[in-house]
Amino acid sequence: MHFPLDHVAIAVESIATSLPIYESLLGAAGSPIEHIDSQGVSVTFVGSGPGRLELLEPTGPDTTVGRFLSRRGPGLHHIAYRVPDIEAALARYAAVGLELIDRVPRPGAQGHRVAFLHPRSTGGTLIELVGD
Amino acid sequence: MHFPLDHVAIAVESIATSLPIYESLLGAAGSPIEHIDSQGVSVTFVGSGPGRLELLEPTGPDTTVGRFLSRRGPGLHHIAYRVPDIEAALARYAAVGLELIDRVPRPGAQGHRVAFLHPRSTGGTLIELVGD
Repeated sequence: MHFPLDHVAIAVESIATSLPIYESLLGAAGSPIEHIDSQGVSVTFVGSGPGRLELLEPTGPDTTVGRFLSRRGPGLHHIAYRVPDIEAALARYAAVGLELIDRVPRPGAQGHRVAFLHPRSTGGTLIELVGD
Repeated sequence: MHFPLDHVAIAVESIATSLPIYESLLGAAGSPIEHIDSQGVSVTFVGSGPGRLELLEPTGPDTTVGRFLSRRGPGLHHIAYRVPDIEAALARYAAVGLELIDRVPRPGAQGHRVAFLHPRSTGGTLIELVGD
């Protein structure tokens, strides 16, 4: 099993401020901004395909990304892999001892169901699974 | 201009300890470990194509990655884009005001010439350019 990368996510203070920098870096435009209530973030994607970046702006300081920014400042936040069957992937990772943040998928960006693995069990990297 | 992602790099305390976790996560094996003197790291790649991960283990505490681990712990370190002409890319990024860590490319992993852009000017993300 080898899941393809879906995107790399970057926490930013402000999409309005950061988007022009990443658009210039990648030579690609940002997608329309989307608000994901279940994660307390606004997001835009820059570029397309597996190299695309997701910029995450928290909706407030008391959100996962808001706390990340307070603690570490802006920068790389998580990497996301596309999985054909997200329930099967979660069961498989739980079986090998990885800690699931989401035991059941929740709504993510662009209409996908998503789930996160805890960085405590992956050697420090927050990993998102992107389902159908 | 839209450069493809080359890899995502993760700083780890020990490749020996972390590699099995990432191999299990990705369902792919690590490449033979390579030592890059110019960066003070040992590296292995897990997976192939743009979703592959590079695990970075510092050769000592007084290296870029060693200081990163002391300051932030293990986790996402940088993202790398493949560029067809690295000198042209560096000139273009300097012209738009991005701060170059390397004004001229230096030897990188797997025989490529590489150069880094400073996270100060990219909104917090360390970005590597991978040339020929």
